[in-house]
Amino acid sequence: MRLVVMNPNTTESMTASIRSTAEASASPGTEILATQPLWGPESIEGHFEGYLSAAAVLDRLAALDEPYDALVMAGFGEPGREGAQELLDVPVLDITESAAQMALMLGHSYGVVTTLDRAVPQIQDRLLTAGLLQRCASVRGTGLGVLELEEDEARTVEVIIETARKVVEEDRAEVVCLGCGGMAGLQEKVSAALGVPVVDGVAAAVKFAESLVSLGLTTSKARSFAPPRPKTIGSWPLHQHLG
Amino acid sequence: MRLVVMNPNTTESMTASIRSTAEASASPGTEILATQPLWGPESIEGHFEGYLSAAAVLDRLAALDEPYDALVMAGFGEPGREGAQELLDVPVLDITESAAQMALMLGHSYGVVTTLDRAVPQIQDRLLTAGLLQRCASVRGTGLGVLELEEDEARTVEVIIETARKVVEEDRAEVVCLGCGGMAGLQEKVSAALGVPVVDGVAAAVKFAESLVSLGLTTSKARSFAPPRPKTIGSWPLHQHLG
Amino acid sequence: MRLVVMNPNTTESMTASIRSTAEASASPGTEILATQPLWGPESIEGHFEGYLSAAAVLDRLAALDEPYDALVMAGFGEPGREGAQELLDVPVLDITESAAQMALMLGHSYGVVTTLDRAVPQIQDRLLTAGLLQRCASVRGTGLGVLELEEDEARTVEVIIETARKVVEEDRAEVVCLGCGGMAGLQEKVSAALGVPVVDGVAAAVKFAESLVSLGLTTSKARSFAPPRPKTIGSWPLHQHLG
Amino acid sequence: MRLVVMNPNTTESMTASIRSTAEASASPGTEILATQPLWGPESIEGHFEGYLSAAAVLDRLAALDEPYDALVMAGFGEPGREGAQELLDVPVLDITESAAQMALMLGHSYGVVTTLDRAVPQIQDRLLTAGLLQRCASVRGTGLGVLELEEDEARTVEVIIETARKVVEEDRAEVVCLGCGGMAGLQEKVSAALGVPVVDGVAAAVKFAESLVSLGLTTSKARSFAPPRPKTIGSWPLHQHLG
Amino acid sequence: MRLVVMNPNTTESMTASIRSTAEASASPGTEILATQPLWGPESIEGHFEGYLSAAAVLDRLAALDEPYDALVMAGFGEPGREGAQELLDVPVLDITESAAQMALMLGHSYGVVTTLDRAVPQIQDRLLTAGLLQRCASVRGTGLGVLELEEDEARTVEVIIETARKVVEEDRAEVVCLGCGGMAGLQEKVSAALGVPVVDGVAAAVKFAESLVSLGLTTSKARSFAPPRPKTIGSWPLHQHLG
Amino acid sequence: MRLVVMNPNTTESMTASIRSTAEASASPGTEILATQPLWGPESIEGHFEGYLSAAAVLDRLAALDEPYDALVMAGFGEPGREGAQELLDVPVLDITESAAQMALMLGHSYGVVTTLDRAVPQIQDRLLTAGLLQRCASVRGTGLGVLELEEDEARTVEVIIETARKVVEEDRAEVVCLGCGGMAGLQEKVSAALGVPVVDGVAAAVKFAESLVSLGLTTSKARSFAPPRPKTIGSWPLHQHLG
Repeated sequence: MRLVVMNPNTTESMTASIRSTAEASASPGTEILATQPLWGPESIEGHFEGYLSAAAVLDRLAALDEPYDALVMAGFGEPGREGAQELLDVPVLDITESAAQMALMLGHSYGVVTTLDRAVPQIQDRLLTAGLLQRCASVRGTGLGVLELEEDEARTVEVIIETARKVVEEDRAEVVCLGCGGMAGLQEKVSAALGVPVVDGVAAAVKFAESLVSLGLTTSKARSFAPPRPKTIGSWPLHQHLG
Repeated sequence: MRLVVMNPNTTESMTASIRSTAEASASPGTEILATQPLWGPESIEGHFEGYLSAAAVLDRLAALDEPYDALVMAGFGEPGREGAQELLDVPVLDITESAAQMALMLGHSYGVVTTLDRAVPQIQDRLLTAGLLQRCASVRGTGLGVLELEEDEARTVEVIIETARKVVEEDRAEVVCLGCGGMAGLQEKVSAALGVPVVDGVAAAVKFAESLVSLGLTTSKARSFAPPRPKTIGSWPLHQHLG
Repeated sequence: MRLVVMNPNTTESMTASIRSTAEASASPGTEILATQPLWGPESIEGHFEGYLSAAAVLDRLAALDEPYDALVMAGFGEPGREGAQELLDVPVLDITESAAQMALMLGHSYGVVTTLDRAVPQIQDRLLTAGLLQRCASVRGTGLGVLELEEDEARTVEVIIETARKVVEEDRAEVVCLGCGGMAGLQEKVSAALGVPVVDGVAAAVKFAESLVSLGLTTSKARSFAPPRPKTIGSWPLHQHLG
Repeated sequence: MRLVVMNPNTTESMTASIRSTAEASASPGTEILATQPLWGPESIEGHFEGYLSAAAVLDRLAALDEPYDALVMAGFGEPGREGAQELLDVPVLDITESAAQMALMLGHSYGVVTTLDRAVPQIQDRLLTAGLLQRCASVRGTGLGVLELEEDEARTVEVIIETARKVVEEDRAEVVCLGCGGMAGLQEKVSAALGVPVVDGVAAAVKFAESLVSLGLTTSKARSFAPPRPKTIGSWPLHQHLG
Repeated sequence: MRLVVMNPNTTESMTASIRSTAEASASPGTEILATQPLWGPESIEGHFEGYLSAAAVLDRLAALDEPYDALVMAGFGEPGREGAQELLDVPVLDITESAAQMALMLGHSYGVVTTLDRAVPQIQDRLLTAGLLQRCASVRGTGLGVLELEEDEARTVEVIIETARKVVEEDRAEVVCLGCGGMAGLQEKVSAALGVPVVDGVAAAVKFAESLVSLGLTTSKARSFAPPRPKTIGSWPLHQHLG
Repeated sequence: MRLVVMNPNTTESMTASIRSTAEASASPGTEILATQPLWGPESIEGHFEGYLSAAAVLDRLAALDEPYDALVMAGFGEPGREGAQELLDVPVLDITESAAQMALMLGHSYGVVTTLDRAVPQIQDRLLTAGLLQRCASVRGTGLGVLELEEDEARTVEVIIETARKVVEEDRAEVVCLGCGGMAGLQEKVSAALGVPVVDGVAAAVKFAESLVSLGLTTSKARSFAPPRPKTIGSWPLHQHLG
């Protein structure tokens, strides 16, 4: 099967890192097609950029020629998933919810370690809307911006571990989720340091995508995610009109 | 003071109708600048269109030259408000939340009458995230699409009354909110028929915008709605790159 | 239009201070009629006094001869609002809920700074019942009693700022509400010190009262706030029987 | 031990009926002192009357000379309990909460049958504030006013059974609470008709009062229910000033 | 009347201590039959042991020849109550819920002091399921294992007081519940040290059992706790097959 | 990898049917070891039988000699999972939670179709405790007992479809979960009839078990599911003492 894994920002090194984690998690026979929007912000650190990215991701999907079996959206706490669910016939997995769901399989409560503190309420709101907030012990920011994550991996790991320790010891989470697509691949180091399971959303979403595809299940079209109605949409798809 | 009132879709007659309600609600001395996106869907009836509209609205804001004192976003249940709150220094009011908040001032519980049934969970989720769902008795769709609202006003009013009656009699709402910017102006007819207060979100948001401006209050920049960080955003603003 | 602004206690200097804030917030053409009960506690710092005050406020309303367009109840966290809503045909705004609602228009979460710690659960319960607690980050007491607020304004401001700082920095509120009618007028100093919006409930309620009156909306009489049924009420109104 | 059982209205026949149920439920050695306010409404069917009654009940307590070991407040869904808890050193039981608590001991969910439909949200709010709403399946009104309950017992029982049947069969309550002090004594007939346990709040509160007294437990004075602070309260106690 | 008080573990000294508290709380004329399972863990400090104990308690009930009027289950936070409710025609009280319910009669919020920290989420979940978590300020572990409670009473009391102080001062509970059947009898010492009411679940459950029995009320058989359906259960009752 | 799939009852035909669904869902290379308790009820239709089964399942685990990589517990709404999580080092998946989690990946809300109505509150409580109830639209019983499911497959399918239709059309679920291990294998027929995704918990749990194993993740031992402490457990393991 073929999974599209969508980095929501335009930073190629981040797309590469997400691809790498996705490939490491995929079963034999699963092909990973990692991609990114054709326009939009180089990183997403707030609502404004999140909304631009949501449109840019939908625009990117409109430009995808090849068939695929499921979509993995690799932005943590960001909007857009519901739009893709309406648009596509294949399953759509979001790393925010996939991380939280896998964490619930592993412990009584979970916490999230993310980038900037300003993202914390945004992530909590996504989890609330997803019906997954009840057993979330806390969401904490490391203070590192999205692109800073890549600058010095040793420091990044150290800061994540330090923050995750508070999530476990003070907030009493039993499982930790890495709360940014750019943290993909660091789960083992963090887990080794803390002695609790650490879930990377990209890995989780890849496995859940494979699971749904193999069971022949896809998004319900009964109500919330019914296909868009036929109508005029000016300048759509955007990439065909952008100079 | 000058208020920008943003119709989230590109249908000019709907912008005109929203302008008309906004002007009717505004205090003397308040200027209404009603506008709409430069691209995007002609109506918004789901998540996909909602996300496109969110970006198109933010793009429209980037093209606004004139100064203004507050923004009223006239889409009901649609995403995007948080992005505008980050971007702007002036207050941002959304008709979904303004309608619900005004309704809470008028009764113990409220209900919402909207267009299509598929929008119901989307509206409930916006109210949940806004912290305003607890006293929402129900959200019900009329079955009329957004653009159908304008086709035959007598029928539109009749269908809204019929649906609102269920909201009041079966779901026990004490106040009814009109759940679409395109219903603006119909509140009196519905209220007269049902004997309960009916809140139009455009009117509510205009009054709340005036209230905040007159008290000198605007969005907190402390955390969730801090200004976007400086960064590269490809093809932004979009309208400057669209052919 | 004419608004009655009701101080729930019998301390005239507090009535004067509430009048002053209400007048400063009112639009041109709005007349403020500030008043207070004819009997009852000189300050309200608990449930017992709150319940006495609720009856005394209703009794005061029964003694009001002049017509008015809306009632603003200037007690924070205190009972009684629902009784006035039943009794009156004009809108009734309570500063507890008005402050919280205005705060929700300005940030993702809000906190309340009140007088004594013992009032904290009482305020939380009012917000819970009002359906507005979900996004309340915290309610904190300053340790100052209601009448102490007036004793030394500089100290009062200092203590409020100190407490509000914890509400913002520790509890992560993005907006602060002043949680006592006796704090009316201090919002600008507190806001300047903290860099976040500060909402005074009296100002908020005055604007919301003006908004409802100008839209022609008033309390739903459909269920919770239907007029009292005709019946014998011994010694009512009380002021006519009190020696 | 001596229990004061307070009918919140001034109708003597209702006080007598509450006394009779309280006495039937009390253990040997428990003396029931049933009483009622010296002024106020003859029945309580809404917020306005509820707030008057709260003050009248507190005033009545101020006039009680004899010592007693606990207070049972026999109004269902009505305000005032917290005031008595502040004022008194002995335990205070309210029939709303006592009925709900006893019901939770008997089944997975409970429902309440009350008088007028307008009281339903008021009762739900009291249960919400008490932390007891989660397992409340529904509150339903019979349509009978408080004083009508006494008019024709056979009809009253019939209407209660009919309403309770909906609570059990449609709303899936496993236990029924009688939601008015004036229904005291009817529990056995209703239970026999429906085959589920029926809890009368007066009986429940009497047993709980006895339980607390016998264990030497009384209201915590640590925070919410600390004694009122010394201060001037004009015309208090009211009965000494009422002509 | 005769109450069976079931210690869920097999430690006789703990059964004796529970008996002693139950007898001290019981009314004259109430006979306490304290007992324990015929097999299973000597103490219960987690889910695995809790589930074994649940079956062992049900097995013990199957071996009880004598008639009794109510069952008190003296395990705090442990599973099994619903099974006994199905099996028996008499009321079943659990000390977890009884403690919480009695605490709600005494203050606005309560906290629980238990043994090991690992039991905290388990207790919170039982209270959540019971519909009693809303006003629980916190559950805290002392770090003492169940059997350690008996080793040195002075130290046990000291550690409980120290933990309870945090529950009151930091978490703002107004009432404290002793969260282990093995703490029965220590409530007065803890209360004297802290100045807030302290509830022992065994005492509370005994009083509630007496209350229900004296009112002639027992578990609803309408749905959740209907009697088990007739069927084959291999090796049941277990004690008859255990060598 | 090898997965143990545990039927919680002793009916061999049901174990066979669960094995068959598990095998159909498993990836190549996954070995299914379906098994059942050595004693206990032939079907589980309530709390009493659920608690017996929980102990019988733990006892069965104690008798398993072969190594395995994960445990799938195939009882819907039944207790015991937490005990196995403490006891084992490998992941433990429960079909109740797995079905709900997979459903959340496929739609905005889900509903559950189960056997007897009496199981409904029990299932809701398990979902509540699991933090997965928020988006559960309803749980409905078919009226068929567990063993009746096998009697006449055509009728079983018909009754499930009829009940599921209400879950979708009246309760507005967008996805349906089969709420009994004995319904495993019927998902395609139900889905074809209703046009919405239908999730079988056994299939979901098998995929999730494979996912966790392949990512090297297992239960957190940090708090709730720490290994049982060393202690005396009389007659344990039970199967060694049962005659």
